[in-house]
Amino acid sequence: MAPQKDHEVNRIVMKFGGTSVADIERIRAVAARVKAEWESGKQVVVVVSAMAGVTNQMVSYCHALSPNVDMREYDAVVAAGEQVTSGLTALALQAIGVPAQSWLGWQIPIITDDAHGKANILGIDGARLIRCLEAGIVPVVAGFQGVCPADEAPSATQVDSIATLGRGGSDTSAVAIAASVKADRCDIYTDVDGIYTTDPRIVSAARKLDRITFEEMLELASVGAKVLQTRSVALAMRERVRVRVLSSFDESTDDSGSSVVDEEEVMEKDLVTGIAYALDEAKITVSHLPDRPGIAAAIFSTLAAARVNVDMIVQSVGSDGSTNMTFTVPKTDQAAAISALEAAKGDIQFGAIQSAQDVAKISVVGVGMRSHSGMASTMFTTLAERGINVQVISTSEIKISVLIKAEYLELAVRALHTAYGLDDQDGGRQNG
Amino acid sequence: MAPQKDHEVNRIVMKFGGTSVADIERIRAVAARVKAEWESGKQVVVVVSAMAGVTNQMVSYCHALSPNVDMREYDAVVAAGEQVTSGLTALALQAIGVPAQSWLGWQIPIITDDAHGKANILGIDGARLIRCLEAGIVPVVAGFQGVCPADEAPSATQVDSIATLGRGGSDTSAVAIAASVKADRCDIYTDVDGIYTTDPRIVSAARKLDRITFEEMLELASVGAKVLQTRSVALAMRERVRVRVLSSFDESTDDSGSSVVDEEEVMEKDLVTGIAYALDEAKITVSHLPDRPGIAAAIFSTLAAARVNVDMIVQSVGSDGSTNMTFTVPKTDQAAAISALEAAKGDIQFGAIQSAQDVAKISVVGVGMRSHSGMASTMFTTLAERGINVQVISTSEIKISVLIKAEYLELAVRALHTAYGLDDQDGGRQNG
Repeated sequence: MAPQKDHEVNRIVMKFGGTSVADIERIRAVAARVKAEWESGKQVVVVVSAMAGVTNQMVSYCHALSPNVDMREYDAVVAAGEQVTSGLTALALQAIGVPAQSWLGWQIPIITDDAHGKANILGIDGARLIRCLEAGIVPVVAGFQGVCPADEAPSATQVDSIATLGRGGSDTSAVAIAASVKADRCDIYTDVDGIYTTDPRIVSAARKLDRITFEEMLELASVGAKVLQTRSVALAMRERVRVRVLSSFDESTDDSGSSVVDEEEVMEKDLVTGIAYALDEAKITVSHLPDRPGIAAAIFSTLAAARVNVDMIVQSVGSDGSTNMTFTVPKTDQAAAISALEAAKGDIQFGAIQSAQDVAKISVVGVGMRSHSGMASTMFTTLAERGINVQVISTSEIKISVLIKAEYLELAVRALHTAYGLDDQDGGRQNG
Repeated sequence: MAPQKDHEVNRIVMKFGGTSVADIERIRAVAARVKAEWESGKQVVVVVSAMAGVTNQMVSYCHALSPNVDMREYDAVVAAGEQVTSGLTALALQAIGVPAQSWLGWQIPIITDDAHGKANILGIDGARLIRCLEAGIVPVVAGFQGVCPADEAPSATQVDSIATLGRGGSDTSAVAIAASVKADRCDIYTDVDGIYTTDPRIVSAARKLDRITFEEMLELASVGAKVLQTRSVALAMRERVRVRVLSSFDESTDDSGSSVVDEEEVMEKDLVTGIAYALDEAKITVSHLPDRPGIAAAIFSTLAAARVNVDMIVQSVGSDGSTNMTFTVPKTDQAAAISALEAAKGDIQFGAIQSAQDVAKISVVGVGMRSHSGMASTMFTTLAERGINVQVISTSEIKISVLIKAEYLELAVRALHTAYGLDDQDGGRQNG
């Protein structure tokens, strides 16, 4: 079976981030890019972020006024940024002969829950947007925002409120809108030109991927590859929205960028797709634990009660026969985790707590791992050859992660990139 | 009968203009002022403009993008300014212990027609705001904006749209909201401390008025006293909303400012309340008209078809027995008026058109004129004594307006201010 060609694409979502609409000139460039797709006969929905810097300014105003910001009001304030760019982008399109109309979250509507500042989309009624598209008009949707219906958040005032999806939420808006209008594709225009096998700042031989599966992207995004917001990838996978990442600063053709697609669409699967890293975790070791059942439960329920997210976990037996538990938490949660455990010392009866921040997590990701053994041994051999000690290991179906000393980060990423055959050269998925 | 005391005031609207919410510090000062009223036991609705300068910035963005701005999109863009200040002001109130909540036009809702950019309020449902007040919460309403329901402006997209009331529309918002919640008073905080007998920059003896009637204010506002937007005064008169104008920069007590009230509330009526002027009109004279019925109708229907607003009108007979028509139009309409008339020259059969821009309109206003004769002769005598020629005269029940050469403006205003006994001195309405 030959590699599939894209099926006919008639309806797309084009999402532009804050740097892409940073000023009047950039907004004009966005309009020109939209016009090119529109002139080719496609129905186009545009989704825009706020002008770069505007959201930060609004956030700083809020924090300057109140030590304890009411998130309902925060949302009313910060959502204004996308409102402005959606109107301006519609005007820029009209000015070059493209019928266009701005759409705010409450106008579509994009219904959310009441978690103001980090709201979840509960549903989007695509009917009005589809009517707009079918009338030949380009809808320009304010990203990052929805509306929380009054009956989701009963109050004395009983009124629908603006809710924002949290930082980076415009990607999620775009994917959700693509699903609601049954778009053939969702193009995310950003300031990078695609998804790479690893961070090109560390590995000069990093290769841009033409295609990556949702699950791979999800693992890469959640472990630190910041091209797409994790939520948007998870949503795209669930709703089966084809996502393409491409640069709004690159004037090249339609074939640029990286596509995030269903696994079935990727033929010759690479064993390993990419290597991600994260420097935002801290390691905590609780040592000399009593050797009795339920001790792990005691530790992690204590942390859960303190709302600490635990990532990697390993249990080990020390040279003196004692039991130790090592795990990682976000660096921002480190202090909270330790004080929660100290407070529970009477129950858990551990000996000591040690922690370290100079650690890096490196993850090798690829759907090919499902069907191939031996992937882990390549990783351990490669690291061992460079004298890099592995402190914690965790695995999933399509990912192996290790925790190492942070100072070895670049060395390890480069060595693994080569060992898994990812270095840029002819062939491979790029040309597949 | 002694001057009436204010009846018990339990519910007020406080409206703050752009300079009053220009930055975070000013917003804090607004919150403190609101808190003082709230702590005295009143129910308070706050109405805010955009931060000074923000609306102008948004307008300039729109015009930079499009030579022919779609006013629906313009409204979506510029309304964001008030959205931001309403949220920020609510946060500032919360920070000092006052429960507060922002309200946008579509949330209340404030229903408008579809005249985007200069929409008219069709109705306000005060029920939600009243529920908010009765729950002990201060609603902070974004001024200047409402929502045009989809069925007011049928389109392919059938969605409610943000509509703005035009520049200065926040005053109108405040008065309309005061009517809808049956407020006892609407306080307009601005950068002047009240309404004066005339422009204090021209007449140093100008006196602040404690009280002025709606009709007087309407005449003063429409002829150039720019303290309150004319529409807001007309609305206040119709809805019988007590309006008070006061300075947001003045820290003095509750008794400051000027009140705009029903005529019945003003006891010892002054003959003349104030003297206004306008420099934004041009004079046009159409000469050597045929002496036949319907000639005035021919001229003014031509101008009406060209959407030119005509203000003062006088018909005269020249020394040669010919008929002339002189009238004033806004300077911005002068060219359109002349070209419309030239185009209709075949029908109207006039001799020539002359026009002049160096004219000033001066108006003497006072409800006392209704019951007193001789007011006009004081005006003409005073002007004649200074050698000032009156070019056009128009009168209403409570106003006499004259058109003079612009260079006499200051002289005429000062002379009339003295002649009508308005110069600052003991007694008078100020201490009444």
